Amino acid sequence: MMNIAVIGYGYWGPNLVRNFSWLEDTHVKYVCDLDENRLEKVHALFPNVEITTTDYQQILDDPEIAAVAVATPVKTHYPLARAALEAGKHVLIEKPMTDKASDAAKLNELARKMNRIIMVDHTFLYTGAVKKIKELVDSGQIGDIYYFDSVRVNLGLFQNDVNVIWDLAPHDLSIMKYIIGKKPVSVSANGVSHVKNNMENIAYLTVFYEDTTFAHFHINWLSPIKVRQILIGGSEKMIVYNDMENTEKIKVYDSGVELNSGDKDALYNTLIQYRTGDMFAPKLDQTEALKSECQHFVDCINKGESPISDGEFGLEIVKILEAAQLSMKQKGENINLDAI
Amino acid sequence: MMNIAVIGYGYWGPNLVRNFSWLEDTHVKYVCDLDENRLEKVHALFPNVEITTTDYQQILDDPEIAAVAVATPVKTHYPLARAALEAGKHVLIEKPMTDKASDAAKLNELARKMNRIIMVDHTFLYTGAVKKIKELVDSGQIGDIYYFDSVRVNLGLFQNDVNVIWDLAPHDLSIMKYIIGKKPVSVSANGVSHVKNNMENIAYLTVFYEDTTFAHFHINWLSPIKVRQILIGGSEKMIVYNDMENTEKIKVYDSGVELNSGDKDALYNTLIQYRTGDMFAPKLDQTEALKSECQHFVDCINKGESPISDGEFGLEIVKILEAAQLSMKQKGENINLDAI
Amino acid sequence: MMNIAVIGYGYWGPNLVRNFSWLEDTHVKYVCDLDENRLEKVHALFPNVEITTTDYQQILDDPEIAAVAVATPVKTHYPLARAALEAGKHVLIEKPMTDKASDAAKLNELARKMNRIIMVDHTFLYTGAVKKIKELVDSGQIGDIYYFDSVRVNLGLFQNDVNVIWDLAPHDLSIMKYIIGKKPVSVSANGVSHVKNNMENIAYLTVFYEDTTFAHFHINWLSPIKVRQILIGGSEKMIVYNDMENTEKIKVYDSGVELNSGDKDALYNTLIQYRTGDMFAPKLDQTEALKSECQHFVDCINKGESPISDGEFGLEIVKILEAAQLSMKQKGENINLDAI
Amino acid sequence: MMNIAVIGYGYWGPNLVRNFSWLEDTHVKYVCDLDENRLEKVHALFPNVEITTTDYQQILDDPEIAAVAVATPVKTHYPLARAALEAGKHVLIEKPMTDKASDAAKLNELARKMNRIIMVDHTFLYTGAVKKIKELVDSGQIGDIYYFDSVRVNLGLFQNDVNVIWDLAPHDLSIMKYIIGKKPVSVSANGVSHVKNNMENIAYLTVFYEDTTFAHFHINWLSPIKVRQILIGGSEKMIVYNDMENTEKIKVYDSGVELNSGDKDALYNTLIQYRTGDMFAPKLDQTEALKSECQHFVDCINKGESPISDGEFGLEIVKILEAAQLSMKQKGENINLDAI
Repeated sequence: MMNIAVIGYGYWGPNLVRNFSWLEDTHVKYVCDLDENRLEKVHALFPNVEITTTDYQQILDDPEIAAVAVATPVKTHYPLARAALEAGKHVLIEKPMTDKASDAAKLNELARKMNRIIMVDHTFLYTGAVKKIKELVDSGQIGDIYYFDSVRVNLGLFQNDVNVIWDLAPHDLSIMKYIIGKKPVSVSANGVSHVKNNMENIAYLTVFYEDTTFAHFHINWLSPIKVRQILIGGSEKMIVYNDMENTEKIKVYDSGVELNSGDKDALYNTLIQYRTGDMFAPKLDQTEALKSECQHFVDCINKGESPISDGEFGLEIVKILEAAQLSMKQKGENINLDAI
Repeated sequence: MMNIAVIGYGYWGPNLVRNFSWLEDTHVKYVCDLDENRLEKVHALFPNVEITTTDYQQILDDPEIAAVAVATPVKTHYPLARAALEAGKHVLIEKPMTDKASDAAKLNELARKMNRIIMVDHTFLYTGAVKKIKELVDSGQIGDIYYFDSVRVNLGLFQNDVNVIWDLAPHDLSIMKYIIGKKPVSVSANGVSHVKNNMENIAYLTVFYEDTTFAHFHINWLSPIKVRQILIGGSEKMIVYNDMENTEKIKVYDSGVELNSGDKDALYNTLIQYRTGDMFAPKLDQTEALKSECQHFVDCINKGESPISDGEFGLEIVKILEAAQLSMKQKGENINLDAI
Repeated sequence: MMNIAVIGYGYWGPNLVRNFSWLEDTHVKYVCDLDENRLEKVHALFPNVEITTTDYQQILDDPEIAAVAVATPVKTHYPLARAALEAGKHVLIEKPMTDKASDAAKLNELARKMNRIIMVDHTFLYTGAVKKIKELVDSGQIGDIYYFDSVRVNLGLFQNDVNVIWDLAPHDLSIMKYIIGKKPVSVSANGVSHVKNNMENIAYLTVFYEDTTFAHFHINWLSPIKVRQILIGGSEKMIVYNDMENTEKIKVYDSGVELNSGDKDALYNTLIQYRTGDMFAPKLDQTEALKSECQHFVDCINKGESPISDGEFGLEIVKILEAAQLSMKQKGENINLDAI
Repeated sequence: MMNIAVIGYGYWGPNLVRNFSWLEDTHVKYVCDLDENRLEKVHALFPNVEITTTDYQQILDDPEIAAVAVATPVKTHYPLARAALEAGKHVLIEKPMTDKASDAAKLNELARKMNRIIMVDHTFLYTGAVKKIKELVDSGQIGDIYYFDSVRVNLGLFQNDVNVIWDLAPHDLSIMKYIIGKKPVSVSANGVSHVKNNMENIAYLTVFYEDTTFAHFHINWLSPIKVRQILIGGSEKMIVYNDMENTEKIKVYDSGVELNSGDKDALYNTLIQYRTGDMFAPKLDQTEALKSECQHFVDCINKGESPISDGEFGLEIVKILEAAQLSMKQKGENINLDAI
């Protein structure tokens, strides 16, 4: 039986408690939050939780606790995760991992030193849809990935403490990183704030790779309609991932352009041939993503393996966010990720 | 009776002949093309066309001809339009106006000197959909325009001589300019070519204004699905223009975010309030856009008025295209439009 | 404080407990079910429920209980509701009210005699969408209703004890009755069973009125896609109610056919004129329908008023179901509702 | 070279002329119509047509003419086709074949006697979509067909001479007959007229087979939205044919219900199991249906083969229409097709 504590019982915390509670051989012993009103509701919903507390130190001092899940505001991720690692706990952190890449790097170093697992809660990676895309890409049938285009817009809740990039882009950047695999090299971003607090509410983000692979993100809190769509253009097939569809979230198009790399003296238009074929919408695993993810966290602890969204993964997302922030302040200046 | 000549009888020329032929008091006297095979088909479809010719000089020498419509490849727009203006003809030019902003400026100067009308065939401005958006914005009910977001992607015909920006963006840039009105100040663009000819087949383009108005364009020849959608976020209402819808192309959402510019010490989240209301899809004028446009050209000649898409309008679109091209070569560097 | 008991804690019962618990001045004192395993879960989710019992007589004997909600299998509705009314309780019954029209009529008579309220849980009537349609129709802007066409199909759970008509049609019949108002006169139905138990899994149902108003229903447990759409054709405007839309569930089309009833010697085609106008999607009340409905039940008890979906309403739905069943056995024979 | 004449140059005639003109070794020698204004337009569009005439007898007297295509109002089909067959011409008739089944039967007898081909222009059978459905069904992968459900509704042109069944249902009935193959046995229909001429503008039609196969049609000239959708439920897979989709008109769902016909004493719910799998949208042949159909007509003449939509096929559709008409007058009375 693994004992877990959940720190932060706001919007996301109850989901963590619920999903960890469903796992076999796992027990949520503590829920911690600074707000006692929130804690009062824990026992009615989750009678198996033993202790609610406003003092996270109580958790870190309890030798029975193997792991903590941190679902607090971003700026508190670093101190809480550091304290937990220093106390010898495995850590699952809400995304984004930290608000500074340097802090994320320090956490990774500490985790290595302490021989503990650090995992970032990039939930989308554990959805049936993204797992299916990964499987399709890894099988080779999509071919080389030419581009990754993501749109995530809606009439959204304006945040006070972060702009739309820090709020929404981690989802799509994590999917990009997981699917494309290779290392991005630079970032260009543009965004605008239409409110007094100067937090951008609409932004566009481009991610460059060493070759012609190319990723772009549109994130927007001020759209009249909700769009959550990713296009993935491959040399063999193309994928549309429309998260607003109830069924058929993933469509695989057996169509594309044959980019003949033949004789350069020939006319270009004879070198490019169109192909449209069948479309295929695979059945997706319907397991709740967070349940799969919590199981993965527990499995990695038990087996001493590194999670899919480990600290290095989380760090790279934070680097892109930091570069995007920098680029946006300079109207789209291309920022090299090594400089972060 | 106004006599017109159409120069260039490829993809677009027949549409010009057909629409000019429908107008009252207008007569298409000549059709000109270098390809005699194309000319052979003219008389069967348009028995009223008098003369087909491979020599455009014949047209310019005919004093009966008041105006010419130029629908030839972009690089020939400048010499053909210059010759026509010098011969005292009014000119309608296919978009984009020229392949260099400096040439477009010269044409405008020449047109002023010759006291002739020069109009650019930005057909979308004459659609029922765009006319309705213009009417809504001008009525004030949309409020200030916060952003303009356009997506025009499909599995498209790769061009040999121009990249995807020069091919597709003139449509959306012309709509942006018409709807927003005020002068853009700078451009940032990114794009990639996946073919040997180095012509970009996917690109993203951002246009900045002096204030926080903000426009963005996604253009892509390599998408498995066809998307033609423009979002316009206003301070009062928001518009979705989905050109793939058969009916309900324009939807007006009476929803948005109240951006209270009150006391700066108050918490920001109390300053921002959400509002979702009714949606409204106005009936649109179904007249073929090109017919309205041809009529507008003839009317402007007869009344001595300046067309909506006059040479200055066309020039500004070419400037943005040229700036985008420059920016793309420098990975998104912000290019000031005054520098073009 | 009104004390309520919920009898039947299967699929729907927990929703009733939850919604009654939310109401002010209302208390769910009992939950009753024959299955003790189900009852065990009640207290964790609803700590305010006082007593769980397998014996409904205990509830009927408790003078503190003013009303019971019956959410048990259809065949038990009649005996349970009768016992509750005889014990002087107000009754809310799950739809359909009973499995025989004659039983429903007996309940209505008993309720009148006991001066108690009987209400049937036709939840759809209390949705924002149906309330809005009712408001639009009552305002007169839709004009006379020409037809009502409903499709409710999906890959559904085959029931053992009832066919697809008894399972799904009560939803749409209740909407029809509420919106159209006037009394239907006869029913024709066709359906087929593709399983051994001879329970129809696909059926079509037509309802006739005295005039040319006309209603039709397609209900199907064996459809690969989920469709829940109602078309309402009016003499002035037409409504599309698509329950699968997240937003814009209701669309009102200002279009139709002008049915000129002029000179009968004139050519008919000159008498019929088309009109297409704007479309309008009104904002809908987002309150959970069952909450509004539970509140309505409590309000009716307190004020001594008759509910929208009272026993007479529920009886008429059962009559149509019974007539449909009869018609289906005779391959579409038209069955007069007065004969039921 | 086969010489063809097209009789009737209204809405459909020009499409026949255009498509026959495209075929190799086929020549449209005559176009015939009673309206000289229509005939005047023929030569500009189709310079290869030799003769336009208002006298169809001129065509029948011309020994060079092998076949005539009849695209005139329904009531004239019988006399025109009979005269053409008697003159030894092969005949293609616009759908529906005739307005009386008895006339269609006479034409078939005459064609056999004269050894000439008679084909009915059920164009939908020659679309890429329907050909693909036929191929899928014939391959056995759909399994047994449980039901065929068709909806064809829009804000349509009211006809003066026929009701909505005779106008729209031939399309869907022809698809049903082609796909299902086996012989239907009876028909039940209901419909209503909301105009003075008593021509039904909305109707529902059910077709019964000897087994539990079941077909249903909703046809409506008074719908605010355009729906053209067919659901085909099979024992193995299910098909959705949405003709309003630009791409993906055909979707094949690898999902369904396993209808276990096992031990009748077992509980029924254990005998029924759900299955949802992948969805697949096959690439469709994009050839214009009417071109394929005209080619098929010419090929059948040349090879002496019977067309897919031959006179017997056309007759069966007329029988169903006549039965539906009869049933509608008797409020859904089940009409046996042998009685027609």
